[in-house]
Amino acid sequence: MKHFDQTTAPQLKSWVQSANASDCEFPIQNLPYGVFRSKDGEPRVGVAIGDSIVDLAALADAGLLQCEPGVFARPRLNDFIALGPDAWKSVRAQLSALLVDGNGPLQGNAELQRRALVKQADATMLLPVEIPGYTDFYSSKEHATNVGMLFRDPKNALLPNWTELPVAYNGRASSVVVSGTPVRRPNGQIKLPEQERPLYTACRKLDLELEMGFIVGVPNALGEPVSSEDAERHIFGMVLLNDWSARDIQAWEYVPLGPFNSKGFSTTISPWIVTMEALEPFRAAQPEQSPEPLSYLRHSGEHGFDIALEAWLQPQGAAQGTRICHTNFRYMYWSMAQQLAHHTVSGCNTRVGDLMGSGTISGPTQDSYGSLLEITKNGREPLTLQTGEQRSFLEDGDEMTLRGWCQGDGYRVGFGVCSGVVTPAPKLG
Amino acid sequence: MKHFDQTTAPQLKSWVQSANASDCEFPIQNLPYGVFRSKDGEPRVGVAIGDSIVDLAALADAGLLQCEPGVFARPRLNDFIALGPDAWKSVRAQLSALLVDGNGPLQGNAELQRRALVKQADATMLLPVEIPGYTDFYSSKEHATNVGMLFRDPKNALLPNWTELPVAYNGRASSVVVSGTPVRRPNGQIKLPEQERPLYTACRKLDLELEMGFIVGVPNALGEPVSSEDAERHIFGMVLLNDWSARDIQAWEYVPLGPFNSKGFSTTISPWIVTMEALEPFRAAQPEQSPEPLSYLRHSGEHGFDIALEAWLQPQGAAQGTRICHTNFRYMYWSMAQQLAHHTVSGCNTRVGDLMGSGTISGPTQDSYGSLLEITKNGREPLTLQTGEQRSFLEDGDEMTLRGWCQGDGYRVGFGVCSGVVTPAPKLG
Repeated sequence: MKHFDQTTAPQLKSWVQSANASDCEFPIQNLPYGVFRSKDGEPRVGVAIGDSIVDLAALADAGLLQCEPGVFARPRLNDFIALGPDAWKSVRAQLSALLVDGNGPLQGNAELQRRALVKQADATMLLPVEIPGYTDFYSSKEHATNVGMLFRDPKNALLPNWTELPVAYNGRASSVVVSGTPVRRPNGQIKLPEQERPLYTACRKLDLELEMGFIVGVPNALGEPVSSEDAERHIFGMVLLNDWSARDIQAWEYVPLGPFNSKGFSTTISPWIVTMEALEPFRAAQPEQSPEPLSYLRHSGEHGFDIALEAWLQPQGAAQGTRICHTNFRYMYWSMAQQLAHHTVSGCNTRVGDLMGSGTISGPTQDSYGSLLEITKNGREPLTLQTGEQRSFLEDGDEMTLRGWCQGDGYRVGFGVCSGVVTPAPKLG
Repeated sequence: MKHFDQTTAPQLKSWVQSANASDCEFPIQNLPYGVFRSKDGEPRVGVAIGDSIVDLAALADAGLLQCEPGVFARPRLNDFIALGPDAWKSVRAQLSALLVDGNGPLQGNAELQRRALVKQADATMLLPVEIPGYTDFYSSKEHATNVGMLFRDPKNALLPNWTELPVAYNGRASSVVVSGTPVRRPNGQIKLPEQERPLYTACRKLDLELEMGFIVGVPNALGEPVSSEDAERHIFGMVLLNDWSARDIQAWEYVPLGPFNSKGFSTTISPWIVTMEALEPFRAAQPEQSPEPLSYLRHSGEHGFDIALEAWLQPQGAAQGTRICHTNFRYMYWSMAQQLAHHTVSGCNTRVGDLMGSGTISGPTQDSYGSLLEITKNGREPLTLQTGEQRSFLEDGDEMTLRGWCQGDGYRVGFGVCSGVVTPAPKLG
C-alpha cells in the first residue's frame, strides 16, 4: 500500500526537464542530499534534480530557503541533519515547491538559476557526512546461509543466534570513502591449507559486498535504548554501500573476534543520501520472521523497502561492464528499525551521521548473490564476463559499480552509483 | 636499561611540593595531559602536577608557554596532539622548566600561580580526546588462553592465528567515557543452556576487563601502512582502560562476527594521558615471541613497558575496596608498535585521537587475572571480598577502580584512577 504525500506524488513534474525522464534517478520525488564542490569552489550541501545539483547555500543566500543560517555552506551534512525531522521535512517541502513546474520564484529567475544550479557533470561529489561510527549488520538470510555453507558446516549453515538477533560487528569508520575513490588492494596475512604458517602477501581474494546503509539522524543517549516502534524516526536516509572484503585475510583472522583487516581498508558509499521521506512510497513487507522475534525486536506495519539493486563489474579497458548481480533490499530478513533497536538495546549510544550497513544483500538465486564469494563458490566456479574474461575474485583495474532504485509508476527514485576501481597493493614492507 | 632525558631524570624536584612525595603519581617526571573544568569555568587543557593541575591556556595567555595560539583553550586535546611530536617535546620541555624547583618565572609569580594552578579536588575531569575510532586488541597470551579454556576447547585454548598476529576487533567509540561516569548495566539477549530460545533480560554476568589503551598522535593515510619500526613515533600516550563486558550477552552473540552489544554499552578510560616521553625510562623486554613474527611485525629494541596495574572492587556502602587483581603491562605478548603495524598493514588509516586497547592484561597467576571471568572461572568459584561478600560477577552499586604506575627510584609515574559505579539496567522495554 503506497503512501504519497505532497512531495512524493507520482504526477509531480519539475521545470528542470531532465528530471522528468522515466529513467532519471533524480526526479522531483527524490531530492537526495549530498555535498559537492564545483570547479574552484568550496564544498556545499546540494540536492540532486535531474542532471543537476541545486546549491542549497545559494538558495538560502537568496532568501528562498528558510533554515538555520549557514548550515548548507558546510563540507558535511551533519549540522543540517542534527536539526532533526521537522527541519528535514520543512526543507524538503520548500525544495519541492521551488522545483515543481508551476512558475515559482526559482523557475522564474534565470540569473539565480545560473548561480544555484550546477550540472552534476561539472561537480565533484564528496563524502556527504562525517561518520562517527560505522556498524555493519549481516541481515540477509540468504547471504548468511551461503557464507555458512562455504566457511562452516553446510548442514548447520545458519548459526543459532541468527534468527534471534540482527548479527552485527563494528566496522572501521575512518576508511569509509565516497564513490569514485580508488580502492587499494590490501596486504595482510593469509593461510594456505598446505602450509604450516601464514604468508605476508597481497590479498588474492578481493571481493565486493553489495549492501545498503542508513544514516542516523536522531541520536540516542548512552543508557537510553531506542524501541523498534520508534527506530525509523531516528533514520535520516539511505545510501548504497560496497563493503570491500579480503576473503583470504578474513578466513584466517576472523575467529574469534570477527573481521578486522579484511574489511578496514575501504568501504565505499554513494554520494547521495536518499531520505526516508522519499522512500516512504516504496515500503514493502519484510520476509516472515520465524520464530517471532523477542519483544524488543517487534514492530507493527511494514518496515521493508522495495529497492532494486545491481552490481556491475568492468575490467580495465573494457568497453562495458557486466551485471554480476541483481537483487532487492526487500530480501532483508531484519529491518533497519530492528537493527537500530538491537544496536541500542544494550544502552549503546548513536550519533548524528553514524552509518549502519545492511550486510550483503543476497536473494534466493545465484544471479541475486551480492558477493563473488557466493557467485563463484569461493572461486571454485569462476564467472565469465561479457568480455570473455573470467573472474573468481577482483583483479587490479576492475571497476565495481553498485546501482539501486525504487521503481515508481513512470519514474524512478534512484541512488546514483557507488563505484570504485581496484588499484595494486602497496609493495610489501 | 633505563634511558633518562632532561625531563625524566630521577633527581628532578618540583616547587609544587605535593609532587615530590614518593607515592605521588604526578611528579615532575610525569606531566600527563588531560582536559578539566573548574567550577563554572570552560574546559581547558591541563597537566597534572602533584595534587594540582596546571592550566596550560593560562600559562600561554601569560606568555610563559609557546605553542600554537588557542590550542589549550579547547574541550579536547586533539588539536594539540595534531601538532605532532616536535610540539609535544617542546611543550613538555617548557613545562618541566616552569615546574622544576629553581626560581623560574612561574615559581616566582604567586599571582599567576593563583590563576594557573587548580587543585585536582576542585576540578572535574572530562574525556581528554575526541575518539574517532576505538580498536580493542587481545594481546595478553595468558588472557587469551584462559578465555579459550573457558569458552572453547581447553586442549586447544589458543587459536592458531593468535601467535601469528595481534588479534583485534573494532570497538564502539561513541560509548567511551571518562573515569567517574556511571556504567549502566546493559539489557540484551542471553541464552541459557536448558532453554530452547534466548531471554531478553538484564545482563547477569557483568565483568571488568583491566586494560590499557594508547592514543594515536600521528595519523597515517588510507593505503599507507605504518611499519613496526616506525610505529611508536605515531603514539602520543597511554591511558588506563576498563572494557566493561557482558559475558552472557557475549557468549550468545559473538559467533561469527565477534563481540558487539556485550561491549558497546560503556568503555571507561582514565582522564590523564601519560606521554610516551614520560614512559621512556620504563621500557622493558616483551615476552619472547615464538614463532618469530612475520617480517612486517618485527622490530628491534625493547617495546614492552613496565607498568604495575591493579583492579579494586568496592561494593556500595563498603568502607574500602578489595584488590582483586595485580598485574603488569609488560606481560603483553604483542607490543603497541606491532599492534599499530598490524592495524595498518591492510592500508587502514588512523586518525588523531584513535584509541587502541591492549585487551585484558592477565599475568601467569590467578591473582594477576584481569577479569572476573578468569578469576572466578566464569562464576563457578566466587571471590570473597574483604567485606565478606562474595562476587561471581559485578553487582549494581559496585565500584570498579583501575590503577597503574611505573615505579622509579623513589618516585612513581602514575596514571591516576579509572573508575565507574555500576547502576541498574533500564526497565525492559
